Amino acid sequence: MRATRFFISTLKEAPADAEIVSHKLMMRAGMIKRLGSGIYNYMPMGLRVIRKVEKIVREEMDRSGAIEMLMPVVQPAELWQETGRWQKYGAELMRVKDRHGRDFIIQPTSEEAITDVARQEIKSYRQLPINFYHIQTKFRDERRPRFGLMRGREFTMKDAYSFDRDLDGLKKSYQTMYDAYIRIFNRFGLQFRAVAADNGAIGGTGSHEFHVIAETGEDALVYCPTSDYAANMEAAEALSLFSERQAASQALTKTATPGKAKCEDVAELLNIPLQNTVKSIVLTVETEEKDKVTKQVWLLLIRGDHELNEIKASKVPGLANYRFATEEEIVEHFGTKPGYLGPVNTKLPVKVVADRTVAMMGDFVCGANEEDFHFTGANWGRDLPEPMVADLRNVVAGDPSPDGKGVLAIQRGIEVGHVFQLGTSYSEAMKATFLDENGKPQILQMGCYGIGITRILGAAIEQNFDDKGIIWPTAIAPFEVVICPMGMEKSPAVKEQAEKLYADLLAAGVDVLLDDRDLRPGSMFADWELIGVPHRVVIGDRGLKEGNLEYKGRRDAEASNVAVAEMFSFLTAKLQAKQI
Amino acid sequence: MRATRFFISTLKEAPADAEIVSHKLMMRAGMIKRLGSGIYNYMPMGLRVIRKVEKIVREEMDRSGAIEMLMPVVQPAELWQETGRWQKYGAELMRVKDRHGRDFIIQPTSEEAITDVARQEIKSYRQLPINFYHIQTKFRDERRPRFGLMRGREFTMKDAYSFDRDLDGLKKSYQTMYDAYIRIFNRFGLQFRAVAADNGAIGGTGSHEFHVIAETGEDALVYCPTSDYAANMEAAEALSLFSERQAASQALTKTATPGKAKCEDVAELLNIPLQNTVKSIVLTVETEEKDKVTKQVWLLLIRGDHELNEIKASKVPGLANYRFATEEEIVEHFGTKPGYLGPVNTKLPVKVVADRTVAMMGDFVCGANEEDFHFTGANWGRDLPEPMVADLRNVVAGDPSPDGKGVLAIQRGIEVGHVFQLGTSYSEAMKATFLDENGKPQILQMGCYGIGITRILGAAIEQNFDDKGIIWPTAIAPFEVVICPMGMEKSPAVKEQAEKLYADLLAAGVDVLLDDRDLRPGSMFADWELIGVPHRVVIGDRGLKEGNLEYKGRRDAEASNVAVAEMFSFLTAKLQAKQI
Repeated sequence: MRATRFFISTLKEAPADAEIVSHKLMMRAGMIKRLGSGIYNYMPMGLRVIRKVEKIVREEMDRSGAIEMLMPVVQPAELWQETGRWQKYGAELMRVKDRHGRDFIIQPTSEEAITDVARQEIKSYRQLPINFYHIQTKFRDERRPRFGLMRGREFTMKDAYSFDRDLDGLKKSYQTMYDAYIRIFNRFGLQFRAVAADNGAIGGTGSHEFHVIAETGEDALVYCPTSDYAANMEAAEALSLFSERQAASQALTKTATPGKAKCEDVAELLNIPLQNTVKSIVLTVETEEKDKVTKQVWLLLIRGDHELNEIKASKVPGLANYRFATEEEIVEHFGTKPGYLGPVNTKLPVKVVADRTVAMMGDFVCGANEEDFHFTGANWGRDLPEPMVADLRNVVAGDPSPDGKGVLAIQRGIEVGHVFQLGTSYSEAMKATFLDENGKPQILQMGCYGIGITRILGAAIEQNFDDKGIIWPTAIAPFEVVICPMGMEKSPAVKEQAEKLYADLLAAGVDVLLDDRDLRPGSMFADWELIGVPHRVVIGDRGLKEGNLEYKGRRDAEASNVAVAEMFSFLTAKLQAKQI
Repeated sequence: MRATRFFISTLKEAPADAEIVSHKLMMRAGMIKRLGSGIYNYMPMGLRVIRKVEKIVREEMDRSGAIEMLMPVVQPAELWQETGRWQKYGAELMRVKDRHGRDFIIQPTSEEAITDVARQEIKSYRQLPINFYHIQTKFRDERRPRFGLMRGREFTMKDAYSFDRDLDGLKKSYQTMYDAYIRIFNRFGLQFRAVAADNGAIGGTGSHEFHVIAETGEDALVYCPTSDYAANMEAAEALSLFSERQAASQALTKTATPGKAKCEDVAELLNIPLQNTVKSIVLTVETEEKDKVTKQVWLLLIRGDHELNEIKASKVPGLANYRFATEEEIVEHFGTKPGYLGPVNTKLPVKVVADRTVAMMGDFVCGANEEDFHFTGANWGRDLPEPMVADLRNVVAGDPSPDGKGVLAIQRGIEVGHVFQLGTSYSEAMKATFLDENGKPQILQMGCYGIGITRILGAAIEQNFDDKGIIWPTAIAPFEVVICPMGMEKSPAVKEQAEKLYADLLAAGVDVLLDDRDLRPGSMFADWELIGVPHRVVIGDRGLKEGNLEYKGRRDAEASNVAVAEMFSFLTAKLQAKQI
């Protein structure tokens, strides 16, 4: 490509509404252009990156045996009513009526559409396993779209759906996709991590997320550097920090803690470690029976320095539909306001659940259910009944790994892929069956597998940038090599060398851009450093006199001279070696 | 591709709602699958064709210098309000509200979005000319979706938009696109015709449609076999059939024609040629001034055997906003009902417009403005005033070509492409300007250029099918070659030959499918004839014993034997020569 035949549009300053580095840099590099809130034009420079991402995804999906098709953007509401998602999906589902008043949705995902295909097309076990995928425009009406392509409303996703005859088959299909994802993210040239994830409300039997590692990532990834253990924060298991109950050595004592409603303040006042305190969280579960609503109060206990994991709480039997209690409910039940609550002498009925670590603590400090007072020296069994025990908290760095093979570390990531064993939730709702060897109908086992194509761009940049701009991995860079001739219009020697190298690289299948805009060196270099092309060749009269061209990798601190005759093989060797 | 790794799903019968052959065959061949009214899943077999169509379009657009980008499917209503299309587009425009109640549309086309890009990005004449295109999902909420991909609601279109500094530039950009379209349609391997088209309501300065020739086409294409003249029916110019006024030889005579309201019946009754009669069409134009509505009655005259061209009528000065008069209005003004109207002794005020041919007629027959009576022997000047003259009728086969180089012929076509000189209608409404050499802002000149990607599939089939199924041109066939081994599982010799030919063709870059489903020959052949793969190789033990494989082109009446050793070069030669 020649720059003058392409569209290059860079900005010195990012627009004010761009909050994060990838959004700023994509706007400045002219990769995307805002059309509306969370809706972007993919400009020519950005589209090249998207196409390269799509190509890698497509090749590896095909290699895994998945079959490409294309489902529509606009889908009839009836299908979504069959699975109940028409009601459940909430405001993120973009709903639209046609001229006859019939309801449709703009697809955020395609489980319903593919299950509709499957229930018509899959008749026999002989057709299984099968995996369909498509790469298609999606829409989610985010409440607050932001961060450019990271949390846009319209975006491109690759979503695949596997169909199997049984759970063993599903697990195999799932593993095939997992392996394909590993190849895909390796080919992108990004640092990533696959982590076990929570299966969420939909049930299912297994799930992993694929995250691009980046300090700015929204998600905390938990992993064990000395083993294979990796999970997201929602799913990472927190073991007790004590293998046995800590001994009681103090008497239960009601202690004045005026105005100290937080564990941190109580610990400071009493001059004890925060780790000796326990915080109380009150939940309410309402059950409706024969038009009568019953409320059950729950008290969850977490060590003062730990955090509640809301997903784990919802998995405690009886807490599936919990909500946090209101201050009124708390005062009504406990007779005091939040900050002074505790499990000792608590008004019944209340269900107490202690985190695994709390359940092993002795001599702990907790609220006295009286304003401005806490108990110290509280001990299970002696001062209060043994609690129900559950894993309720987020892990922290240094916790023991659940596999017993080390201690946990935490890093930040951006979720860009997800593989999920759906099981039969959609196929049952939509009656998608096949006939087994005995001619008996059986429910199809499903898996779903997504990659956020456009999100990859944002994530790649969050991982790879410097103060000059983006640093694309070569595999997904808009161009692999840029040739920058200095004064091409004035110097026939420069022009000749530039055209020759350009032609040679093109012929070798290299994705090269010749910058024939005849700009000043400073502007030209700034453009390509901002846009993030990994390999740059500068051709100037001075270097040519000494028989040299100048090479600079996007991450290199300094440019280096390469003999004119060697530049072609120098570059192709670099590309072959996948440097950068 | 191996059949067992792909998804093949053929039907013996087409669904009842499939009305035309391409719809039936695409459903039967498992290329598309209905998801909702006018909304289709593109199944794996159909998607392969779409991708080939897209690739050819993309390559030729790139070659023409157009630059690919991607505009969103969901676009803010504000842009459409700026151009007035939010109001004007009517019910075909799919409108949608987001969670905040803001209005959006699902794009049927992208003039507004690209003009929004242009007014921000194009600052100087130095950036011109430029042409952006995208290949994107479109939605038009057709009142009655039908004919499969021919008149669906969701479809894929390539739309390009050129920006120029002046009309000369626009004409050059337009010609570049026209030439690219010629290359594209040639590469598809389809018979097509480019015809001049009417510019429609939007104005503009020139427009051509590209039609795939097919007897089942909705549109009539007018062309001159002995010259370059070609236009669609709306735009084809009808000359007068007489170079001078026909002489008067009869007296004007009021003649009883009881119950004969049609020209055909009058001609039969009077035993004269239909070509001697003139039919009268009454139009009404309402104009509103100072809250007062004024009605003007127009009488349009067409020869009895001709048809009114409504587009041409709207171009008569004063008739831009005409409507057909109601029967009440006709009776009120003419004192008689339709069928007996005419231009002689007509109550004023009425404006009479005669078609060019009618204006040259003598001794013609027309209604007498009295029920059950016509005039015979009517002559211009003598019996009634000279009329206003205009081209009002559709041409018919045999008419003189407007370029004077022969006579016109008519064939049917399916519109699959359109190039259009928009001029400044969008850029003015949206204030899209650039600075010229003198630093003065100038309005951008725009062109737009569409190709109905998915519609191409339907049109290609309407042109190429037989009673067995589809006959794809090789360039857009789902597979170029299918290898059908007979009894592959039982015969090692068959298997070996099939695998060898498959591997050789794959290595040569041929898009080949190996049908390893081990079906009976009849089913296997029927599948591939229905799907329409252009080249078929059958490998069987009997042939192998004689050293032969069997070849059959999809259009061949009989299969022919080709020596095993020669089949590879036989096939690659056929593909090279673009046979079929």
